[in-house]
Amino acid sequence: MEVLRGQAQVDFLPSALTGVVFSVALFAAGWEFGLYGLTGTAVGTATARLLGADRDRITAGLEGFNSCLVAVGCAVFLGPHHPSTAVLALTGSAVVTILTGAAARILATWDLPTFTLPFCLTASAMTIAAPAEGGTSHALWQWGRVWHQDAGPATLSRPAAGPTALTVTDLWHAFFANIGQIFFMPQWYVGLIFLLGIFLACRRAGVLACVGSAVGILTAWALGAPAEQVAEGTMGYNAVLAAMALCGVFLVADAWSLAYAVIGAAAATALSPALAALFAPSGGHTFTWPFVLVSLAFLAAAPAFPRLRRVTG
Amino acid sequence: MEVLRGQAQVDFLPSALTGVVFSVALFAAGWEFGLYGLTGTAVGTATARLLGADRDRITAGLEGFNSCLVAVGCAVFLGPHHPSTAVLALTGSAVVTILTGAAARILATWDLPTFTLPFCLTASAMTIAAPAEGGTSHALWQWGRVWHQDAGPATLSRPAAGPTALTVTDLWHAFFANIGQIFFMPQWYVGLIFLLGIFLACRRAGVLACVGSAVGILTAWALGAPAEQVAEGTMGYNAVLAAMALCGVFLVADAWSLAYAVIGAAAATALSPALAALFAPSGGHTFTWPFVLVSLAFLAAAPAFPRLRRVTG
Amino acid sequence: MEVLRGQAQVDFLPSALTGVVFSVALFAAGWEFGLYGLTGTAVGTATARLLGADRDRITAGLEGFNSCLVAVGCAVFLGPHHPSTAVLALTGSAVVTILTGAAARILATWDLPTFTLPFCLTASAMTIAAPAEGGTSHALWQWGRVWHQDAGPATLSRPAAGPTALTVTDLWHAFFANIGQIFFMPQWYVGLIFLLGIFLACRRAGVLACVGSAVGILTAWALGAPAEQVAEGTMGYNAVLAAMALCGVFLVADAWSLAYAVIGAAAATALSPALAALFAPSGGHTFTWPFVLVSLAFLAAAPAFPRLRRVTG
Repeated sequence: MEVLRGQAQVDFLPSALTGVVFSVALFAAGWEFGLYGLTGTAVGTATARLLGADRDRITAGLEGFNSCLVAVGCAVFLGPHHPSTAVLALTGSAVVTILTGAAARILATWDLPTFTLPFCLTASAMTIAAPAEGGTSHALWQWGRVWHQDAGPATLSRPAAGPTALTVTDLWHAFFANIGQIFFMPQWYVGLIFLLGIFLACRRAGVLACVGSAVGILTAWALGAPAEQVAEGTMGYNAVLAAMALCGVFLVADAWSLAYAVIGAAAATALSPALAALFAPSGGHTFTWPFVLVSLAFLAAAPAFPRLRRVTG
Repeated sequence: MEVLRGQAQVDFLPSALTGVVFSVALFAAGWEFGLYGLTGTAVGTATARLLGADRDRITAGLEGFNSCLVAVGCAVFLGPHHPSTAVLALTGSAVVTILTGAAARILATWDLPTFTLPFCLTASAMTIAAPAEGGTSHALWQWGRVWHQDAGPATLSRPAAGPTALTVTDLWHAFFANIGQIFFMPQWYVGLIFLLGIFLACRRAGVLACVGSAVGILTAWALGAPAEQVAEGTMGYNAVLAAMALCGVFLVADAWSLAYAVIGAAAATALSPALAALFAPSGGHTFTWPFVLVSLAFLAAAPAFPRLRRVTG
Repeated sequence: MEVLRGQAQVDFLPSALTGVVFSVALFAAGWEFGLYGLTGTAVGTATARLLGADRDRITAGLEGFNSCLVAVGCAVFLGPHHPSTAVLALTGSAVVTILTGAAARILATWDLPTFTLPFCLTASAMTIAAPAEGGTSHALWQWGRVWHQDAGPATLSRPAAGPTALTVTDLWHAFFANIGQIFFMPQWYVGLIFLLGIFLACRRAGVLACVGSAVGILTAWALGAPAEQVAEGTMGYNAVLAAMALCGVFLVADAWSLAYAVIGAAAATALSPALAALFAPSGGHTFTWPFVLVSLAFLAAAPAFPRLRRVTG
């Protein structure tokens, strides 16, 4: 149950049923991804239990969702069939639990949650240490034994061709892919299963995911993102997460927090290319950094604005 | 009044009269800059009021100065005549208000002010997302619709030719330009008007601005900065701000804090090329990062040194 | 005495005798390094005293170890015989004291020590501002007067040739060099003298240094680091520091903290190439950043895991 809730907590939902649906979605994208996801969540939860972490957090699945993302991320970026990928995924899932403890303690000073910050830190360290497939590798040695030159999928950030026209197909693909990309999955039908899982746990969360996805598409279009990337969902997954976090999950859902969430979703989308450019010279990726940074900032600012009320827990 | 105080707060001065003089200086540099500045401050202040921010902060102009800099920065770096620049400036001025709330809350833990940190964050995100005019753009799509390939002024950091001799003209130009560059303005007479505005509000602040400017020139010269950049004031504006912040504004003005401010001004100048090099691969700019980082560090350290006393109230 | 304790505090040991041995090790590597080390520690301690810092911290040597590293780092990276190196080392040793005050205050919020964070910040700013010997310098002017084109030793991060076989000689050289590299020294016999100094102050600390060194070699080998770099100790010095910090110095030494320290030492080693890649585009170095970041995170997380107990007092 904790493991399934851990899957669902990627989208802030402490629901084991949603965790089942999310796992189905991962298996639909590829049995390896489903397996990596479940194993990662299990390893993270087990590590937290071994170290004696808070039982409430473990039961709610809060010690598993970062591990889940690290494991699935390893599978996607390094290729799931290499034995070294499995070793890295297991190690990363365990270490991210310690980072979760650190982030939770430090952010608690301002009553802030960790979001997926521990995952972002771990995944960024791993991909920056990995040699770029292009060649001009800067690192000292960069995990030469681990990364494989044929690791094709390690590129989310391919050169952009500039703004192109969005077709209707692009639009509805993007709408669902934005939700699937939270778990790195570009297929629209995988995103659809994820969305069903969200609606199963909480209708409001599902609506907000849709709002976030729409805001993400709109912002990406307004700023001139290439159609292909919009359709694949790489422009909008941060908007989905930011919208859910800022309206309903951490701030009481009302008209004010809805407006705040829309601004946050747009800001997270606009921040994506900035972070991509910042990470590019060293070979890193954006992951969910835009969502994490925007949500932390917007949530930290919330007490200064009395119209916004925090959800009390 | 709040808007004018917002202009003046860029230099720590809650004086509407100084705000008028600062606006005159901006209009002297170009009517567009004056307009962007006033509009930015107004939008930021209005956003803060809409969200119900603390009235005292709004009245003192503390919710406007970051917005002012974001708006003027957009005009300078993107060209003031594009409609998209106006849209970005308005959006940025509003979003920076939320970042101000976040920064104020987090830094309050150590009794630290935000300085221009919210502006630096916003402006860095915007310029890193903007495609470099050189060509080798790393970002995914980088706001393709917004930035214009003919946006020539987007380069503060041009290749340096190495140390050259400073003429007397360079020196006195630099002395005033250092003060004008706080608002991105390289003209010495614009800097002179700003300096008059500072003296109008507070003679001690004016003297400190002069001290900071002199320390900035001296440090830049000692480290071998090219004469052209010294003369344009890009080497010294951080020193001016750091000197004012550390002696009189946040630390009680006495011999100890004066020495501390001189060290801080020199450190901010020396940090500038380091941050320029750090941002260069991703196309960012230094903005007032050196001032912000040095002043935060020096002010955070102050309680450890009993000879330095914080200004209370 | 304070100065000698400052030397020893680089390895967490408040022992003047160890400080003597460490100075002997530095002089064995070159009389300049010994001189820079002692002078740097003295300048840092004097600055702290002048500013009225806490006497207990000064007496324990906690105000000197960052200055020591800054001064020795300047000598190693800029060449000890240039007058400008001496000026920079003196200035850096003084400024790092202020950064120590800032870092100590901010990290005290979570009951965390500064480790060598002030040194890392200062040294990173200095090396990033220094023009890369390769040529493509990005900074505005980058301290042109200070850095010399013949500054050969400014390269720790040379291009890696990929994994090669480790000989037995490589292994035992690496074992001691890992300890010497804490002070930037690649000679195995210098590392051996440092290790003797550690054992003199505390046998447990010496054992942990050996454990950390072994874990560092093992992790570097597992990830495929080039033999030459392993033998020079550049892969393992962070592991040595992390192991000492996490078992015995800040966490009560027992089986749990030993396991935690081993994981931390491995994580610090794995993080090294990631940080090297992150700094490479702007010409920075890793210094002890991996140790600092891993130890801060692991120590911040410790209260979440009741099996780990902090050293009180």
